[in-house]
Amino acid sequence: MNKISELFGIKYPIIQAGMIWCSGWELASAVSNTGGLGLIGAGSMYPETLREHIRKCKAATTKPFGVNLPLIYPQMDEIVDVVIEEGVRIVFTSAGNPKKWTQHFHDHGIKVAHVIANVKFAMKCEEAGVDAVVAEGFEAGGHNGPEETTTMTLIPMVREAIKLPLIAAGGIATGRGMMAAMALGAEGVQIGSRFVASEESSAHEMFKKSVIAVKDGDTALSLKKLIPVRLVKNDFYLRVKELENGGAGREELMELLGRGRAKLGMFEGDMQEGELEIGQIAGLINEIKPAAVILEDILKEFEEERLKLIQNIF
Amino acid sequence: MNKISELFGIKYPIIQAGMIWCSGWELASAVSNTGGLGLIGAGSMYPETLREHIRKCKAATTKPFGVNLPLIYPQMDEIVDVVIEEGVRIVFTSAGNPKKWTQHFHDHGIKVAHVIANVKFAMKCEEAGVDAVVAEGFEAGGHNGPEETTTMTLIPMVREAIKLPLIAAGGIATGRGMMAAMALGAEGVQIGSRFVASEESSAHEMFKKSVIAVKDGDTALSLKKLIPVRLVKNDFYLRVKELENGGAGREELMELLGRGRAKLGMFEGDMQEGELEIGQIAGLINEIKPAAVILEDILKEFEEERLKLIQNIF
Repeated sequence: MNKISELFGIKYPIIQAGMIWCSGWELASAVSNTGGLGLIGAGSMYPETLREHIRKCKAATTKPFGVNLPLIYPQMDEIVDVVIEEGVRIVFTSAGNPKKWTQHFHDHGIKVAHVIANVKFAMKCEEAGVDAVVAEGFEAGGHNGPEETTTMTLIPMVREAIKLPLIAAGGIATGRGMMAAMALGAEGVQIGSRFVASEESSAHEMFKKSVIAVKDGDTALSLKKLIPVRLVKNDFYLRVKELENGGAGREELMELLGRGRAKLGMFEGDMQEGELEIGQIAGLINEIKPAAVILEDILKEFEEERLKLIQNIF
Repeated sequence: MNKISELFGIKYPIIQAGMIWCSGWELASAVSNTGGLGLIGAGSMYPETLREHIRKCKAATTKPFGVNLPLIYPQMDEIVDVVIEEGVRIVFTSAGNPKKWTQHFHDHGIKVAHVIANVKFAMKCEEAGVDAVVAEGFEAGGHNGPEETTTMTLIPMVREAIKLPLIAAGGIATGRGMMAAMALGAEGVQIGSRFVASEESSAHEMFKKSVIAVKDGDTALSLKKLIPVRLVKNDFYLRVKELENGGAGREELMELLGRGRAKLGMFEGDMQEGELEIGQIAGLINEIKPAAVILEDILKEFEEERLKLIQNIF
């Protein structure tokens, strides 16, 4: 049996990434009901909003689901309490030190996967006793590591460094991408962008349309002097780039960024002034589909690819 | 039969990248003799130096080999004449418009592959009538596309856009990487960094040692205001970065770059002041080996991986 499926008690080792403004209970429960692992993205929720999403998710599925917690979140103590009080069984942590919360979650019987973008943090995960590692490449949407290591190179390097069950993220949206990730040494995949453009995603309709319109070269890793984030190249991005090219420092960039731009773009639909976080693989996504169909497409293509590989002999 | 093997008349669809200062006749003939396709990197050679390398390569192997031509090379007319006069049968062109030389090469019975980094140029290759496309991702060493599209996302997008035989490049050094590239839709792989750290590579011994010492995060895409190039983060790189962070323009960067830094680093062994062009996958390379052993390792791991993936059933 597959290590990741076994760890989380799911049918297929496919995790729907917990994404701010895009992955609430509707998307997470739809993915979990189809045999993958749905994640509620807590990063854009107040503690009581998260509680509501967890309750609705529990009502909508009997299958395992989880919550993604970006550890830099300001009200993390309250968020952790909500997760424990509501009986969530799986947590994906990101953007922080895996040592901080892992033991606490384990004490409450919660499985922990931690997202990393370099080998050093993958090894820290092993020390911290997390249950699985998500290794996310440069091509991923949203916040991203400063090393800029791509999925193609990060996965085999992490695979050599640690023994933990390994989930590949960044640049994966199809069965072929999943097969490639498995060949590189992952036992599961985390898929974000493909699920942003799903019917159940809470992304604004304009943002979903923007995702399916994105071609190669239409996103870029931006704001590297703050926290690097992969964005669609809209007016806001171009203004950031102009400042950066001119040598602007952190303060100037923070002033331009202001507050609430991710919500403005992804949730409220301002395609020019918002931060539109999406991965490079959006260039391969051309249609908004139900989450269940997306999962079925991936599994079907994965199986086709497997049958082709049998013939691949030299 | 595999499309790429058939096109070039080789046993395995593995191409050793034509790299400046690293891939002369010794490396190219060693790879070709083992069943791959060796390429002489003309980008760092005067026309008469190239002639000598081609002649020595012909003397060292009866198998097909090729020459890599960066089309921005100043003496391209003379270089093309040398290639034709010496009866080279395979040319890989890069860094330019595939329309310019393809017909001329075809008129002399020479097969042409062209290197691209985005979907638009892949389509231009098809229009230009080239025989195969090399799609190279952001993680690759040396000069690189401004779109920063990674191998994981570029290969499936190019695969959807064109029907030409497709070679994946960037981030591939092992049998697992080759399997991943095949799963993404490529029919062959071009491997650079792994062959820089080969016994037959003409790279300086210090550079070879630097390649096997590189870990994840030790390279970066640099000089983006000129032509983006992936370099090891040495003293020279850090000075470039400081200038860039301060908003320096092209002129200032060109002055710092000066002339001959690639030779200084890769061929003459100055590890701090030279340009050291290597890919992210160097983080996975730990040993200098003969080219033949490298090829055998790749093929063995590819076959092991194939047998494993066949069992991957959900």
